[in-house]
Amino acid sequence: MNFFKLIKIDNTCQARLGTVHTPHGEVPTPFFMPVGTTGTVKTLNFEDLRQMNSPIVLSNTYHLFLRPGLKIIEAAGGLHGFMGWERAILTDSGGYQVFSLTKLRKLTDEGVKFKSHIDGSSQFFTPEEVVRIQQVLGSDMFMPLDVCAPYPCGRREAEKSVEWTTAWARRSRDYFDSHQSQSRKKQRLFGIIQGATYQDLRERSAREILDIGFDGYAIGGVSVGETVKEMFEALGHVMPVLPENKPRYFMGIGLPDQIVQAVGEGIDMFDTCIPTRYGRHASAFTNRGKIILRNSEFAEDFGPIDADCDCFVCKNYTRSYLRHLAGLKEITGLRLISYHNVYFYVNLMRRIREAIEADRYAEFRQEFLRKYKSELAEL
Amino acid sequence: MNFFKLIKIDNTCQARLGTVHTPHGEVPTPFFMPVGTTGTVKTLNFEDLRQMNSPIVLSNTYHLFLRPGLKIIEAAGGLHGFMGWERAILTDSGGYQVFSLTKLRKLTDEGVKFKSHIDGSSQFFTPEEVVRIQQVLGSDMFMPLDVCAPYPCGRREAEKSVEWTTAWARRSRDYFDSHQSQSRKKQRLFGIIQGATYQDLRERSAREILDIGFDGYAIGGVSVGETVKEMFEALGHVMPVLPENKPRYFMGIGLPDQIVQAVGEGIDMFDTCIPTRYGRHASAFTNRGKIILRNSEFAEDFGPIDADCDCFVCKNYTRSYLRHLAGLKEITGLRLISYHNVYFYVNLMRRIREAIEADRYAEFRQEFLRKYKSELAEL
Repeated sequence: MNFFKLIKIDNTCQARLGTVHTPHGEVPTPFFMPVGTTGTVKTLNFEDLRQMNSPIVLSNTYHLFLRPGLKIIEAAGGLHGFMGWERAILTDSGGYQVFSLTKLRKLTDEGVKFKSHIDGSSQFFTPEEVVRIQQVLGSDMFMPLDVCAPYPCGRREAEKSVEWTTAWARRSRDYFDSHQSQSRKKQRLFGIIQGATYQDLRERSAREILDIGFDGYAIGGVSVGETVKEMFEALGHVMPVLPENKPRYFMGIGLPDQIVQAVGEGIDMFDTCIPTRYGRHASAFTNRGKIILRNSEFAEDFGPIDADCDCFVCKNYTRSYLRHLAGLKEITGLRLISYHNVYFYVNLMRRIREAIEADRYAEFRQEFLRKYKSELAEL
Repeated sequence: MNFFKLIKIDNTCQARLGTVHTPHGEVPTPFFMPVGTTGTVKTLNFEDLRQMNSPIVLSNTYHLFLRPGLKIIEAAGGLHGFMGWERAILTDSGGYQVFSLTKLRKLTDEGVKFKSHIDGSSQFFTPEEVVRIQQVLGSDMFMPLDVCAPYPCGRREAEKSVEWTTAWARRSRDYFDSHQSQSRKKQRLFGIIQGATYQDLRERSAREILDIGFDGYAIGGVSVGETVKEMFEALGHVMPVLPENKPRYFMGIGLPDQIVQAVGEGIDMFDTCIPTRYGRHASAFTNRGKIILRNSEFAEDFGPIDADCDCFVCKNYTRSYLRHLAGLKEITGLRLISYHNVYFYVNLMRRIREAIEADRYAEFRQEFLRKYKSELAEL
């Protein structure tokens, strides 16, 4: 069975409907992956994710490697067994974390040396080691070690990040191919495209990664501080090069309106910690934009977060009550708002898929962006 | 219909089986009230409490009065509506909080003046005001303002706390009786017995409170720092005086073995924040005693918290995984352990009731205390 099956392209734009087949279930595309960096989606438990019909979560190689460490996860029979999650998992390589969280990192052709952000211990990641870790984790889809250029980024540095990313992608592919266990459930390796904000570098990176050949293609080095316009320009440089028969992953994106926009450009996969991070700061997503529940205007607002939402939080709790809990920093409040936000994302993807199915995605996107009062409605 | 119905007394000891009838459902006794001080049981939501079949929660007048304040709760139609909980609620008066949380408090015959622990604002509680607040909250059972003696406590101070508690109990009763609304669902007022560790003062307080007459009787001023032996001595002073036809509430008690012991003395009602407080510190209750999940011995322990437990946490998560989350202070971990602990308490009460029903409570108690390795097994 093919890993990715493209079902259709919307008549009105580039939005695609498909399915990703994993050893832990089918995942309809486009989909969103709730982020469980350390082995849990913050404030939620896996019963919550099943209840909201999320077929997949994302977790992180860098964090899991440091804590609890491979020995414990291997003893638990892999990450699925360790966490108690029987559906699909994608793991990020940790490349981004090495660059964003650690100090004193040193890049060489061989790999990246860094000090743990937890205990300062010296660590060394090579592309081969990062593949090996993820083979032990047993994630269904995973990413190779890449070099994420910062923002802003000079041309020379961006070029170097493309070169390293390509060289490491090739080594990752080689190690992956020569170390696939027959007994292991089939894992899938993605390629990551870098190139910062430079059109020619994005195109070059895409061509080089495509030449190596992967099960899916990710656009990395986005959502690192650039403007939304630049983010979509980077996407625009890459999309024409990507093959139709492989899933496309816009890494770390984004706000609801950004996801709606990117689906219209032909993206299939998303992840971001925004719904839980915003939830823990008492910001909630609605179809009419974000609301900040701490605001006094909600003190006696006995309506739900979002009148259009059918999640259990919106069915059972008021803005007034959630504001009260959030003001006290009660864990329950942060959890309930996080739940709603993740539900909002997961449910948004369902609505997106229904719109594509009905060949009305361009209209759906326009309506969504207008109601959400998105700046993207103007772009 | 009577508020309290005594169904039976165990043949082998003083343990009692009964029912408390409230406008928000029947509550079988003996029961435990999960503590939702500020309007939520910490880390849990009400769906959790329904799932574990808890028919009641406890909340706190002092905390709710300060935040969110009566105006908001009244606008929400009372505390049930504000929190989204349709089952029974008992509210504590806040007497204990005024004495434990606030500084610069000043007691007079009229009431207690104190500064809010939140913003330092000056507040004044009278027995009448505390009844009025709880009438607005709409709790099914509530407590009058009392004076909780500290530990240790000189005789004169203990005597004075008994005198104030009695005088305020009478004023509470009078205000309650003359301000019962016909339209309001019938609320029930309890009396609180003080007297610190002095046998004659405990007996005197009990007689005075009984003379006034309440729907139920609570033993207060316990679990304030005294030894477990002194705590059960205070109970022993009071129990012979209490009438059979009213529920008996041992306030703020306690650890699982203390509850098992107190039921055997004839107590019907309990509350304590221990299951959630311990849960947030990664301590979990089992039938073989408390375990500290942070301990390294659990790093590769892939069994459940308690092999005898059928809560969703024990069915789905391992000690190893919970230890990992607790070590990272992940909210999910603190929540899952808290859930198990509250479930352990609620389920313990069910086991207790079944043992009384079968006239085997003395045996149940002995077995429980032995397996739990309780110091009470020796008392």
